[in-house]
Amino acid sequence: MSWEFRQPVRFSDIDRAGIVYYPRFFDYWHRAFEDFFADEVGVPYHRMIDERRVGFPIVRVESEFKIPLQHGDLIRVVMTAERIGGRSLTMRYRTYRPGVEAVAAEGRVTQACVNMDTFRAVPLPDDLRAALERHREA
Amino acid sequence: MSWEFRQPVRFSDIDRAGIVYYPRFFDYWHRAFEDFFADEVGVPYHRMIDERRVGFPIVRVESEFKIPLQHGDLIRVVMTAERIGGRSLTMRYRTYRPGVEAVAAEGRVTQACVNMDTFRAVPLPDDLRAALERHREA
Amino acid sequence: MSWEFRQPVRFSDIDRAGIVYYPRFFDYWHRAFEDFFADEVGVPYHRMIDERRVGFPIVRVESEFKIPLQHGDLIRVVMTAERIGGRSLTMRYRTYRPGVEAVAAEGRVTQACVNMDTFRAVPLPDDLRAALERHREA
Amino acid sequence: MSWEFRQPVRFSDIDRAGIVYYPRFFDYWHRAFEDFFADEVGVPYHRMIDERRVGFPIVRVESEFKIPLQHGDLIRVVMTAERIGGRSLTMRYRTYRPGVEAVAAEGRVTQACVNMDTFRAVPLPDDLRAALERHREA
Repeated sequence: MSWEFRQPVRFSDIDRAGIVYYPRFFDYWHRAFEDFFADEVGVPYHRMIDERRVGFPIVRVESEFKIPLQHGDLIRVVMTAERIGGRSLTMRYRTYRPGVEAVAAEGRVTQACVNMDTFRAVPLPDDLRAALERHREA
Repeated sequence: MSWEFRQPVRFSDIDRAGIVYYPRFFDYWHRAFEDFFADEVGVPYHRMIDERRVGFPIVRVESEFKIPLQHGDLIRVVMTAERIGGRSLTMRYRTYRPGVEAVAAEGRVTQACVNMDTFRAVPLPDDLRAALERHREA
Repeated sequence: MSWEFRQPVRFSDIDRAGIVYYPRFFDYWHRAFEDFFADEVGVPYHRMIDERRVGFPIVRVESEFKIPLQHGDLIRVVMTAERIGGRSLTMRYRTYRPGVEAVAAEGRVTQACVNMDTFRAVPLPDDLRAALERHREA
Repeated sequence: MSWEFRQPVRFSDIDRAGIVYYPRFFDYWHRAFEDFFADEVGVPYHRMIDERRVGFPIVRVESEFKIPLQHGDLIRVVMTAERIGGRSLTMRYRTYRPGVEAVAAEGRVTQACVNMDTFRAVPLPDDLRAALERHREA
């Protein structure tokens, strides 16, 4: 089962070529990841960091940008868990323009799971793991 | 005496109207403020925060934007200390386009001086005060 | 009557002092201004630019930052029209942390109304003027 | 032969985990790419866009983040041309912390070469091609 995030493309997301500046996609995808914690894990992302001292630094990214996005597009990001490791995870983000069936941009983002005080890898929290399992890539 | 900072306008600074997105000016001015510490105070800004535990949260901003800046402009920021308080300071930033005599954008930024652990106001460090005095607004 | 915009503070909005990096407030306020067009003017902001060729470059900003915002705060921005000129406008943005009565940050942003091809001042469109009148600062 | 770009890590590049927010790396790499045009191609990037109407939208990115960067790090980006295609190119960016031999972050960025009016692929300009050949990945 996938999980969805929606976001309008803002004036400030546009670059001088008139399309979304590509690093903004990583912001969109991170926002989707953040909201997933509140909605599906049951622990808002900031409390995962502040109270449990668990964070998720990015270690690897692969992405493709196929269709430019423009100001005012209400984008849809479909997120799935592609890999659920012991101490890391890989999320997949398919990003769509309204009314266009093909994927506009797609990313795979691998994140370590670390203790925020030591920055050492720790096991994925059980509630996160359970939420990821429910949204595993088919 | 004023202090100068130079910075090219980058592709990513431009908004969909084809000019510098105005919040970027605050980035430019903050970079000028950061570099002033390394060059004139003698303590890089990150060490002021990390080692002395002193930081400068912004409490007030006034700015005017008169001439739009464009991609590729090598801008010049002229910084002066307009007010040197006991536990706060107000810097003034005049920003120029190359080859244009008039100020393109101008800002007054007031910052508190705080302890980074308590966020309580503390006196300006002596070396910072001395450097500010040397660059006081005429 | 005021108009409200809500926005969670994101991971990426936080600076190294652990609070919202102050130029992000101008992003929040610009998003509020954008959404006002779709919701109250009846013309999404990007269509105002693309189809009517009318835009609103910022000419003056005054703002005060009183209470730091943190990751996860669901902020509330209360927007009013402080001044509705012939060819310019001044919006006022009061920003609140959840559960705190006092204003956390406040801004006055003055924008020209220009033709996007010539960048020359033009009269405020009637539908915008009417929407601003309905949300005039008391 | 590689080409180098240097950049201090700024206060605003740091995220709430106290390290460089990973999408900033794409900014750093884009700045390196921009400066390469002025220094090695002989045509500043903004003039390539404005006058020749040639731009380079990103179509694919692969990157790895191995060592976190911190505020104040004077980073070094070593850029090489990994693939020089007919109508596209792939640049490689190795990013180093001062005093650390291992690569801190590494990216491969593939960009199409397009006409900015039609967004259709066009051949790489000859002067760009020649500059890329001089900086081919060994």
